Amino acid sequence: MASGSPAPTRQDRRRERTRARLLGAARTLFARQGVEETRINEITEEADVGFGSFYNHFDSKEAIVEAVLADSLGAQGAALERATRELEDPAEVVSVAHRHFVRLARTDPDWAWLLVRLEVSHNVMVAALGPHAQRDLERGISDGRFAVPNARVAFFATGGALLFVMRAVLDGDAPASAERDHAEGVLRMLGLTAADAAEVARRPMPRIRVAA
Amino acid sequence: MASGSPAPTRQDRRRERTRARLLGAARTLFARQGVEETRINEITEEADVGFGSFYNHFDSKEAIVEAVLADSLGAQGAALERATRELEDPAEVVSVAHRHFVRLARTDPDWAWLLVRLEVSHNVMVAALGPHAQRDLERGISDGRFAVPNARVAFFATGGALLFVMRAVLDGDAPASAERDHAEGVLRMLGLTAADAAEVARRPMPRIRVAA
Repeated sequence: MASGSPAPTRQDRRRERTRARLLGAARTLFARQGVEETRINEITEEADVGFGSFYNHFDSKEAIVEAVLADSLGAQGAALERATRELEDPAEVVSVAHRHFVRLARTDPDWAWLLVRLEVSHNVMVAALGPHAQRDLERGISDGRFAVPNARVAFFATGGALLFVMRAVLDGDAPASAERDHAEGVLRMLGLTAADAAEVARRPMPRIRVAA
Repeated sequence: MASGSPAPTRQDRRRERTRARLLGAARTLFARQGVEETRINEITEEADVGFGSFYNHFDSKEAIVEAVLADSLGAQGAALERATRELEDPAEVVSVAHRHFVRLARTDPDWAWLLVRLEVSHNVMVAALGPHAQRDLERGISDGRFAVPNARVAFFATGGALLFVMRAVLDGDAPASAERDHAEGVLRMLGLTAADAAEVARRPMPRIRVAA
């Protein structure tokens, strides 16, 4: 919160609680029955709030889908940050992040579908994971571990590569080795030699705990 | 056409003409006013066919969008194939294809938006460009010019990278050098050294003529 902003009023807190309940209900329903099959009135019933109050928080179903996704991507980003804080090699940090998300396409396909099939994917990924990804990339560049023609292009190219590989995993169209193979490709793109990329992508994965 | 299949009847030909008119009308309207703003009855009016006959050819607006995109991607793929037929270096063939599509995001943003914003992007790209991309990739691998951990993963990763870089160009979020920088990244991913990738991505582009 910006310093000098007033303390939240009781009304602010109630508003925040309603929003959190709507998000929780939407997350539950999307996982249970899919986004397409979920209607706004089901979300408000599950959240036990009036139908009209949905629109005090979100313009449309699309808007709450985007918010659910942004929240969970934020939690994934924070978990990755904690898990990789002690790693000294910036290449390993990037490798772990990409492997984690490819793995999620296998271990949590409902969530992964939410990410890959929506028109909002690009915006949400850039907003929620962008700062993490960009910082990891810049760290590798300033350490001399990465060398890319343009950091901005590398940022988008590696993000898009990740999304398509996740989609291929969801479609059952990717090999069992996709996680490692994809990380190798990303590391090569960032300037590692093929041999270095192969070695880094094979290091053991740290434990990644996502806050509920 | 499969050998032995019967010659098309007059009715078949009429049906094919109606479909082509619907596609042409849709293409015109999408470019003029955008996909969201185009209604099915506007497409049938522009094509000068009855409203009901739309549904003899397409299930929904989404279906005709997908068909328009598949047609134009097919034409782009064929043009690229003609333009790169004489190139001896498989790395150059891939570089030219990626540079061509990133360039299209600048020179034909209406078309590029159609490609990048739709849920169908992944399917349509895989279906329409997949065979070209896969053949180029395999040629490079069998020539020993490319070396990748897994060709399937490389296929999806380079496709996703392309789509996100095109989107960044459309959003005004990519540098002027995006075309070349992206091609360099793809070539590195395919196993070229950074120096080789930089050299290939800077070769002059051949002329690419897309059939109307």
